[in-house]
Amino acid sequence: MLDHDPPVTAVREAVTRALEEDLTPLGDLTSALLPPGTATEARIVARDAGVLAGRACAAETFRQVDPSIACDWRAADGDRLAPGQVIGAVSGPLAGLLTAERTALNFLGHLSGIATRTRRFVDAAGPDLAVWDTRKTTPGLRALEKAAVRAGGGANHRGGLSDWVLLKDNHLVALGIDEAVARARRRWPARTVQVECDRPDQVMAALDAGADAVLLDNMSPAEVTRCVALAEEHAAEHRTRRGLVEISGGITLETIGTYAGTGADRVSSGSLTNSAPVLDIGLDIG
Amino acid sequence: MLDHDPPVTAVREAVTRALEEDLTPLGDLTSALLPPGTATEARIVARDAGVLAGRACAAETFRQVDPSIACDWRAADGDRLAPGQVIGAVSGPLAGLLTAERTALNFLGHLSGIATRTRRFVDAAGPDLAVWDTRKTTPGLRALEKAAVRAGGGANHRGGLSDWVLLKDNHLVALGIDEAVARARRRWPARTVQVECDRPDQVMAALDAGADAVLLDNMSPAEVTRCVALAEEHAAEHRTRRGLVEISGGITLETIGTYAGTGADRVSSGSLTNSAPVLDIGLDIG
Amino acid sequence: MLDHDPPVTAVREAVTRALEEDLTPLGDLTSALLPPGTATEARIVARDAGVLAGRACAAETFRQVDPSIACDWRAADGDRLAPGQVIGAVSGPLAGLLTAERTALNFLGHLSGIATRTRRFVDAAGPDLAVWDTRKTTPGLRALEKAAVRAGGGANHRGGLSDWVLLKDNHLVALGIDEAVARARRRWPARTVQVECDRPDQVMAALDAGADAVLLDNMSPAEVTRCVALAEEHAAEHRTRRGLVEISGGITLETIGTYAGTGADRVSSGSLTNSAPVLDIGLDIG
Amino acid sequence: MLDHDPPVTAVREAVTRALEEDLTPLGDLTSALLPPGTATEARIVARDAGVLAGRACAAETFRQVDPSIACDWRAADGDRLAPGQVIGAVSGPLAGLLTAERTALNFLGHLSGIATRTRRFVDAAGPDLAVWDTRKTTPGLRALEKAAVRAGGGANHRGGLSDWVLLKDNHLVALGIDEAVARARRRWPARTVQVECDRPDQVMAALDAGADAVLLDNMSPAEVTRCVALAEEHAAEHRTRRGLVEISGGITLETIGTYAGTGADRVSSGSLTNSAPVLDIGLDIG
Amino acid sequence: MLDHDPPVTAVREAVTRALEEDLTPLGDLTSALLPPGTATEARIVARDAGVLAGRACAAETFRQVDPSIACDWRAADGDRLAPGQVIGAVSGPLAGLLTAERTALNFLGHLSGIATRTRRFVDAAGPDLAVWDTRKTTPGLRALEKAAVRAGGGANHRGGLSDWVLLKDNHLVALGIDEAVARARRRWPARTVQVECDRPDQVMAALDAGADAVLLDNMSPAEVTRCVALAEEHAAEHRTRRGLVEISGGITLETIGTYAGTGADRVSSGSLTNSAPVLDIGLDIG
Amino acid sequence: MLDHDPPVTAVREAVTRALEEDLTPLGDLTSALLPPGTATEARIVARDAGVLAGRACAAETFRQVDPSIACDWRAADGDRLAPGQVIGAVSGPLAGLLTAERTALNFLGHLSGIATRTRRFVDAAGPDLAVWDTRKTTPGLRALEKAAVRAGGGANHRGGLSDWVLLKDNHLVALGIDEAVARARRRWPARTVQVECDRPDQVMAALDAGADAVLLDNMSPAEVTRCVALAEEHAAEHRTRRGLVEISGGITLETIGTYAGTGADRVSSGSLTNSAPVLDIGLDIG
Repeated sequence: MLDHDPPVTAVREAVTRALEEDLTPLGDLTSALLPPGTATEARIVARDAGVLAGRACAAETFRQVDPSIACDWRAADGDRLAPGQVIGAVSGPLAGLLTAERTALNFLGHLSGIATRTRRFVDAAGPDLAVWDTRKTTPGLRALEKAAVRAGGGANHRGGLSDWVLLKDNHLVALGIDEAVARARRRWPARTVQVECDRPDQVMAALDAGADAVLLDNMSPAEVTRCVALAEEHAAEHRTRRGLVEISGGITLETIGTYAGTGADRVSSGSLTNSAPVLDIGLDIG
Repeated sequence: MLDHDPPVTAVREAVTRALEEDLTPLGDLTSALLPPGTATEARIVARDAGVLAGRACAAETFRQVDPSIACDWRAADGDRLAPGQVIGAVSGPLAGLLTAERTALNFLGHLSGIATRTRRFVDAAGPDLAVWDTRKTTPGLRALEKAAVRAGGGANHRGGLSDWVLLKDNHLVALGIDEAVARARRRWPARTVQVECDRPDQVMAALDAGADAVLLDNMSPAEVTRCVALAEEHAAEHRTRRGLVEISGGITLETIGTYAGTGADRVSSGSLTNSAPVLDIGLDIG
Repeated sequence: MLDHDPPVTAVREAVTRALEEDLTPLGDLTSALLPPGTATEARIVARDAGVLAGRACAAETFRQVDPSIACDWRAADGDRLAPGQVIGAVSGPLAGLLTAERTALNFLGHLSGIATRTRRFVDAAGPDLAVWDTRKTTPGLRALEKAAVRAGGGANHRGGLSDWVLLKDNHLVALGIDEAVARARRRWPARTVQVECDRPDQVMAALDAGADAVLLDNMSPAEVTRCVALAEEHAAEHRTRRGLVEISGGITLETIGTYAGTGADRVSSGSLTNSAPVLDIGLDIG
Repeated sequence: MLDHDPPVTAVREAVTRALEEDLTPLGDLTSALLPPGTATEARIVARDAGVLAGRACAAETFRQVDPSIACDWRAADGDRLAPGQVIGAVSGPLAGLLTAERTALNFLGHLSGIATRTRRFVDAAGPDLAVWDTRKTTPGLRALEKAAVRAGGGANHRGGLSDWVLLKDNHLVALGIDEAVARARRRWPARTVQVECDRPDQVMAALDAGADAVLLDNMSPAEVTRCVALAEEHAAEHRTRRGLVEISGGITLETIGTYAGTGADRVSSGSLTNSAPVLDIGLDIG
Repeated sequence: MLDHDPPVTAVREAVTRALEEDLTPLGDLTSALLPPGTATEARIVARDAGVLAGRACAAETFRQVDPSIACDWRAADGDRLAPGQVIGAVSGPLAGLLTAERTALNFLGHLSGIATRTRRFVDAAGPDLAVWDTRKTTPGLRALEKAAVRAGGGANHRGGLSDWVLLKDNHLVALGIDEAVARARRRWPARTVQVECDRPDQVMAALDAGADAVLLDNMSPAEVTRCVALAEEHAAEHRTRRGLVEISGGITLETIGTYAGTGADRVSSGSLTNSAPVLDIGLDIG
Repeated sequence: MLDHDPPVTAVREAVTRALEEDLTPLGDLTSALLPPGTATEARIVARDAGVLAGRACAAETFRQVDPSIACDWRAADGDRLAPGQVIGAVSGPLAGLLTAERTALNFLGHLSGIATRTRRFVDAAGPDLAVWDTRKTTPGLRALEKAAVRAGGGANHRGGLSDWVLLKDNHLVALGIDEAVARARRRWPARTVQVECDRPDQVMAALDAGADAVLLDNMSPAEVTRCVALAEEHAAEHRTRRGLVEISGGITLETIGTYAGTGADRVSSGSLTNSAPVLDIGLDIG
């Protein structure tokens, strides 16, 4: 199992579902017209520059359509792709290749689009400000999309509500920071407890309450710099590791560089997964 | 059942799947800290201008998380939204609202993003050149995304490989246009038979063979105009309805207007469904 | 839960599956054209004489399509139906009724067809020769079809391979009757052990080995009479209850009466479930 | 992928479901008594004349029960079978063969029954009146049954409500023919729009409104002839292709020949799929 | 298929579900750190004495995680295991082995725990009092747990409510013994009809009514002895086979021996499946 | 949503599965004999002392079997139960209550058994040594069992392999502690990184490498005390929070008290979930 690979169970189930929606109920009307037994070869080719993700899904698509189709991969998830670069070769019956083509490319295009956008954020953020995804994923595809973020050089924030505690304003209104963090520590020990902060004074309150991390929402680079300084003060005073500082809220490829020197540890963006245009990948047959 | 609504079965299954991936295995760690029984009200609000889609999925999400949550909708799929416009009000236990929030918004944002992008294409194409989607949808979400295209004023091309016959170059290499169309007519009577054409001479061959529609791939407005003229000649000569002319291939919001006067009937773009950024929709609580 | 009702879990799952195959991916194209909000009433009517089955599936179909549709039933599973008889009234939005119509009727027609055919067999066999179904059911619908057999006055043979032991010729070739029955008794105590017999001497061997029941395959009424006599001899000699005698193999509505006086206890026929023509049931709207 | 083959996803899912209902929860009580490791050979044999369908399901059944079972097929879906003809040979462990036997035969018998009945309709209708199936299929098995119709020489009408527009009386009451067809054209471009007609004047109205096809319900051959003439008049007058004429409603194997010369294009019958008796196919072991 | 094996469909589905809950959504974070391609060997080893069950589930777990992992089994379900005994060897990529390890061991430990406890009951009950399981199984795992009981030398009582008729006090209150047994005989012929008895007089009533078996609930050995005598009287008087006598209700490993000479046929205990501690089985790598 | 409640999606799916396995294919043979319409009341009663868990599953079971059954709960998950205490009252049709009874009790008994065992560990460990579960759960029931642990006063260790990094000996052999922890930090930032240690020197190595937590496997109280001292030294030297110390490996209810004063933070035991005997809970009807 490669590092970037999504769980095998997620791959199998997503491919079955995608084929069902494309083939139900009558199958591929057009490929059914082809003479049986015509074998062919095809190449999966990047039409644009980007980063590959979704290879396991494409391979599983060909396998489920026809186990006699062979795949010979020339790139792996996470590899940078140049326009025209051959990602892999597939060979087998023409009808099966054409039936599987669009579903395989839909996976590759969607997931490589996410990996490519992630890579651009990672490069723009620079080495000191790492890039996190969010829970703003396409419904039903979280496992695959989070693997694509990893392929693009990003890292995974919470996999879901069940991973760690993230206290947002609405939780805090009901409980107050001190009580909320204390409850979280008691209930969910050894899990990250993170507090969303809209103002610098909340950062100190969160760290005083014992939060592991803060999420600075919609702050300017200057405000972020100030919050990081507060967090360092807090660490020095309490002789402990500095709380992790994540920034979020409308940060774009254009503005991300202005946060590079703020000392923040992490930048997260829902746009990695919910607004990445597809990477154009095609199948050249024959 | 409203016109734009996706099938009820698709809505129920997609929501179940999305909640499973967000809640498994331990549930919402953060909401679990809240005092039980805190009732609250919230408004679903558009942060940007766009077109609404996905209301049925959002309603189903709240219902599955907690049947006691009530939804009062103030906009329907297909409605244009202004920034700040209230889409609906939800009321019920705070913990349930927060647990459902992200999943409901992921549906609304993703599907409204598609509806919004579609509406822009529809407006840019003008009244004579209608807009079609493609099979380039996000794996597992085709029924929902095709409904979002309808909400945006577009129409649905094939729902899947099982809908009608679309002969592309690789099918034609194996069979030739005449034989391919003849087989399609025999096997799949009363279904649309469409032929992809890269050159004008293929248009005449396709119509002579009896195709109902042609798909002009990657042609300039001038080439399209010429192909439409050929199709009209063919119709006049054979005293029949003119074959439907679809154009496709790299047509963007910027270039679509240049095709408005070509006489083509339809323009299709995979980008409606595979490259639409999310529409920003949020939940304001309290 | 009524006696004839199939398990609730089987009803829910079968209806979901049937609606998915009819509505995927774009929904009901035709009903979507209707003006929303048109309420209507409709009657489910028998077009032919027969026996009702499948009511729970029809009710569940309307419920899943639109929970606001109300059903008012005037007949229950197992009731005899006259041509023109109203089975139930449904009322609600016209679009939902039309979307659900075919699926609801497919369940009613298929299952009532089985109940009707079963009832004919039961009536022809007379009071002393009861009618059993088999495992020759439509794949995926066994629970529903076996409930329809009960509605028709028949009884259920094995629900599946897991219910009891039925030793056929191929099992006996490998083991011999004595050893086979002995193993069955040891492994699966308190479950019926039945032996298929092609010849009278096998009947005695089976009963001597301790079988609870024999299945006489493809025997004439005279042969059956002789086998029943053997079974009674065996019972008298061993002072035990007489082994149950089932007959099977090509017995039709026409020939079943000739077995009525043979003393056999049960007649089974795969045709109850795999060859019953649909009972014509329609929906009259407005 | 052969022409007649149902989608691979439908085959896999239907077989899994069928085996679950036969084996749950204790497995095959009888085969479990056999000594392990007994290898055997068996032949799948037609007991009656007919047309084969369902081979892919049978093969998948043996594969799922025990991947070491080998199948050697001697006939393909669509082949005519003579009584006694060997369809295929299977070899492997005796216990596995017996466990899979009934499920494999249930698929073969049910689907070949449909193919056989379809072939009889096709032969009786003659070369000018082609045969269509309907949506009157067994719930949950539509994809498999529609493939069996193709194997029998028939063609597939709508795969489901999502395929094309078929306006029946209840839709027309609410909308009127003109408005209904116009809405259909706008909403679902390039899809067949068909109008059900009970009387000849509705045929002209439907064609004037722009319908592609009419469905003549319950008409005599003379009425059908008259409607076809109307459709030809309409085509001549409007210099367009003649609308497709489908006939339906109680047409049987006995009466179908009387419609052969009417000029109608298609005859459809729900009885192909909902009233076809099983084709008797058995397994001869050893 | 071995005798003790659970149905293949149950094994596949349970393993898929178990892997999904362990790997969703991000996969195995720890194994993902390992260098790809590191092959290794491991031994599955019993840490305690017991009886093996669940081998098919463990094999399927390794196969689903990585089909290239090879298993070489040295013990089969039902075999007694000594502490330290090697059950099987697995070899393949280290990352896959570690990902599969816990799920495979959870199946082996849970099911072998049941087999082991069952074996202890079987040994303590002696040869004349056989051991039955109950429906008190872990929700969702009945097929696997009942197979484990067989591996431990026990036998399976009802697989579910659908297997045979067991009339308990609450059924009898509503119907009375005579009527209840008569209805059961009529509705569910050839299936075991069993009556739960709290007092000796109920035993006679049940047998007079025609029950095949009685379930003596919470009786002392002396009471059981008396009830068996009553059943024998009844059989002698009616010249029939003696009704089967099952005892149940709080019988433990310590007390089971005191029932050995009572003449009861069967003892059942929910604790076989709902209170068996895990058998400690581990994986030794390298 | 209560704190102890498992995710709603897990509850619904587990109950559907459990009912399917109990009711397939013929339903509840015995309840089907009852006269329809008999309404009754019943009480869910604890037969032994313990802690309640699984209420949501029991409620869902009654609801799925018959939505007209009403539940009136008198205790909540996490409540201590005395022998004879009424947990809740259910009322509705007798047949439905009896059909649901065993499945509802199987959930309550299994999950309350886990809560009860957890509570005993929590009480024995004392206030300073908190109790954690493990991944040694029953396959397919992890979400429910982890909720039961919370109901018993324990806390949840990893929900699955996807939660945090736990480096065991086999991972360390391949990578070394330094490299393994460094990779984990890079790949999975902000997630807990824990290292299993068999010897005190590994504790220092793990903390030097930057691990958040150590898992002391199979150590005596004296060894644990020494390791905690090392961890405190490390924290003092590096002016950071002390690494979390978990102990595990064969610690029982009898020995757990001897670890109370060692300074360890957490004790984990697979036996909470894989070896908890059922809590005896019954249904008293009428």
